[in-house]
Amino acid sequence: MSFEKLKEQIEKKKNPTVMGLDIDIDYIPESLKTGDIENDLVSYSSALIDACSDIIPAVKPNCAFFEQYGLAGMRALDRITKISREAGLCVILDAKRGDIGNTCNAYARAYLAGGEEKPDYLTVNPYMGSESVLPFAKEAEKTDKGIFVLARTSNPSAAEFEDIKDVQGVPLYMRVAEKINEWNAKTSCVGAVCGATHPAELAALRASMPGVFFLIPGYGAQGGGASDVAPGFENGKNAIVNASRSLIAAWKKKEDGQEHYKDAVREAALDMKAKLNSVM
Amino acid sequence: MSFEKLKEQIEKKKNPTVMGLDIDIDYIPESLKTGDIENDLVSYSSALIDACSDIIPAVKPNCAFFEQYGLAGMRALDRITKISREAGLCVILDAKRGDIGNTCNAYARAYLAGGEEKPDYLTVNPYMGSESVLPFAKEAEKTDKGIFVLARTSNPSAAEFEDIKDVQGVPLYMRVAEKINEWNAKTSCVGAVCGATHPAELAALRASMPGVFFLIPGYGAQGGGASDVAPGFENGKNAIVNASRSLIAAWKKKEDGQEHYKDAVREAALDMKAKLNSVM
Repeated sequence: MSFEKLKEQIEKKKNPTVMGLDIDIDYIPESLKTGDIENDLVSYSSALIDACSDIIPAVKPNCAFFEQYGLAGMRALDRITKISREAGLCVILDAKRGDIGNTCNAYARAYLAGGEEKPDYLTVNPYMGSESVLPFAKEAEKTDKGIFVLARTSNPSAAEFEDIKDVQGVPLYMRVAEKINEWNAKTSCVGAVCGATHPAELAALRASMPGVFFLIPGYGAQGGGASDVAPGFENGKNAIVNASRSLIAAWKKKEDGQEHYKDAVREAALDMKAKLNSVM
Repeated sequence: MSFEKLKEQIEKKKNPTVMGLDIDIDYIPESLKTGDIENDLVSYSSALIDACSDIIPAVKPNCAFFEQYGLAGMRALDRITKISREAGLCVILDAKRGDIGNTCNAYARAYLAGGEEKPDYLTVNPYMGSESVLPFAKEAEKTDKGIFVLARTSNPSAAEFEDIKDVQGVPLYMRVAEKINEWNAKTSCVGAVCGATHPAELAALRASMPGVFFLIPGYGAQGGGASDVAPGFENGKNAIVNASRSLIAAWKKKEDGQEHYKDAVREAALDMKAKLNSVM
């Protein structure tokens, strides 16, 4: 049941878009910058959320962009998570964590236990196998949250390992997909990260994981268009598409963007919504 | 040159042991507990370091055990890193990070840029390919630090993906090993995580990565003994063996351990040193 919250928000807003909060300092308009990184991260994220909370269902803060600023960054992340949830948005924390045993339990508690400053969903790296995924899924089950396991990512070098075919000719990402089915059957809390940059692979992944909720990166600045992400939907449902730079840095493409950054992100989000709706 | 610092410490102490700081709250003796988690983590870690800094070359704090306590945990991690470095120990942060592009650069800055509270080495997950490893290696090159990329981990479910054989019959972990050679040839900053739980695999990994520095988990509580880790050394060098629970919770096996926890960890560390030296 743990993807229900996200599905409800998508249905309500008729928009399967998640705004990736990969807040590069260069994306923050000069007028907002105070020199205090914690406040700058929070005030820009708040502005983005304020501009779009009635049209987008979710945000995806990327942990690294906050961790790089140490404690100030982590405080900002907690505040942004809380602000997002108060604005009715689901929060997917893109942390790509993965470890085993007690360590995995500790990560699961760190991110999926209760608390307003904790996200609803978390991304997880499957390299070390079930022991690095199931503790997250079990914690998510308890707290009515969910995880997204990396299957096929959208970056060029993903091919180096994820595409390696085994003796039966099955690529690694499809072996991961089989396990995602297993893990999700046990907990109903396991979704999949399946990139938009290879539509044929996305279609194969969709066919192999019926009923599994997809997080689809690679739209926008990474090169994927609406037709590329279309194969990730299941009867127009069960997927959400991430865009980061094309939304949160939309103002940079406008001549007077500095002053109208909120208009720019809203316009880009509405454009993305229309494009996604046209192919679903 | 970035593994020189670690090699020097190992040589100086004639001991290729790294003490894993997976500080479970249950491992902290009651006499040290104040109810303030930040101080409790720091005071127990400091005691462990104090008991062993003349005989062990390095510590490996596991990020999850600190992240689970939010900001208090992260402050503790910074303080413990600083204390370890001041005691002359190398610090390997076991964070298993992995992401791409700008995100990877952000993680690399977060952990490998300068600063006394920053570790010397970082563990990295290779699932997403070169784009998720090279930015770390390049940052490490600049700061004279290093990374350890997961090749074959020591946990049972590692077999699910890491052991999958490709059409040439080569397991995934050996494909990762090939890439580690490539990445290390470019930067001299890339080591490998190769578990102790399968000595034959460890020997194959050693043969396939001449000159690459190994971090070997799985000794002690995970079941690996000195003879299991022996194949990971290259002429008695180029590897360090991790033990966590068997050192940091050594006092729990003693009748009067609560009072003599520092003696217990020192005794366990000396025992491990002797055993490792007997097989190198």
